[in-house]
Amino acid sequence: MANPIDFYFDFSSPYGYLASLRIDGIAATHGREVIWRPYLMGAAMKLTGSTPLINRPLVGDYARLDILRSARRYDVSITIPSKFPVASVAACRGFYYLTGSEPDRAKHFALSVYAAYFSQNRDISSHTVVSEIAAECGADPTSFAAALSDSAIKDRLRRETDGAIEAGVFGSPYFIVDNQPFWGNDRLSELDEWLESGGW
Amino acid sequence: MANPIDFYFDFSSPYGYLASLRIDGIAATHGREVIWRPYLMGAAMKLTGSTPLINRPLVGDYARLDILRSARRYDVSITIPSKFPVASVAACRGFYYLTGSEPDRAKHFALSVYAAYFSQNRDISSHTVVSEIAAECGADPTSFAAALSDSAIKDRLRRETDGAIEAGVFGSPYFIVDNQPFWGNDRLSELDEWLESGGW
Repeated sequence: MANPIDFYFDFSSPYGYLASLRIDGIAATHGREVIWRPYLMGAAMKLTGSTPLINRPLVGDYARLDILRSARRYDVSITIPSKFPVASVAACRGFYYLTGSEPDRAKHFALSVYAAYFSQNRDISSHTVVSEIAAECGADPTSFAAALSDSAIKDRLRRETDGAIEAGVFGSPYFIVDNQPFWGNDRLSELDEWLESGGW
Repeated sequence: MANPIDFYFDFSSPYGYLASLRIDGIAATHGREVIWRPYLMGAAMKLTGSTPLINRPLVGDYARLDILRSARRYDVSITIPSKFPVASVAACRGFYYLTGSEPDRAKHFALSVYAAYFSQNRDISSHTVVSEIAAECGADPTSFAAALSDSAIKDRLRRETDGAIEAGVFGSPYFIVDNQPFWGNDRLSELDEWLESGGW
């Protein structure tokens, strides 16, 4: 069995959202599975000394334009959320809670969190909002809400974020397959060509 | 006549080098001209609070790998120079000196500077080295060397760098065509598709 693709992303990343809508399809054409790995990109950004694109002079204006232009290109409805970027701790914990027993629902939840944030301007840093999204995906709201404060789930997210950084990950989206890292939604076509050709 | 493509780059940027080898060909398929605009990216980076990719934890390792992988993809010989990044003031001044009277030679010079730096590990921050490269391109070495310290040429580079920043430019390569900005060598194919389709 060929190695899976590790797909690292932050729920506050619009380019992560765009990639989340395409990565499974691209992987499938090459007979690869995808391991979805949300993590706290802010922890990596502390190490790299980076700041959110949107907050930087000059870069911020470009990023606003490019996010919306990229969304149009892939026919995805995106508006810049009123609170952006935002802490994605609750969404990540919810994902890792669901993925333990219901991996398909976890993925459905991840896509729904992204759509809620970037298409519906819902505040995904809120436990309440994230629990509502989980309920919309058919999860039990009471146990889900409890899991958001569960120490085992908190530990899981810490381990995942530490593991991402140990693997060299610092951005969103960020892919690793066959030990090759690819950073950015605009590198998905390169990842596709890499798998098609066997690399260069 | 369709608008030209403004091609902004820094001589110390490996992604600028890769783009310099492809932009004219892409533009020609769409009946566009390219205005080559070397500038001092460091001035923009002061404004954006950015630092060279190669110097950042995590990002630096990725950048080294990605620069070499991107070079292999486009069949370009690149080694990371021993002094990297480097001040590109002399190379920029030389370009603007040549472009006034000999635009074709200026472009030849720009491509030669890039190759000298990234393929031959020559120190392009040196007036002597840059003058040697100009001579290799057939320019008169004495008048070229004098121009590197000429106040009118210094002013021209300042104006070009200020103009780039006023146009929102902060990276290398960075393209603007029909008021649309595109940042990065990995966006050249998007620029190509944009011109082909008329945009989205």
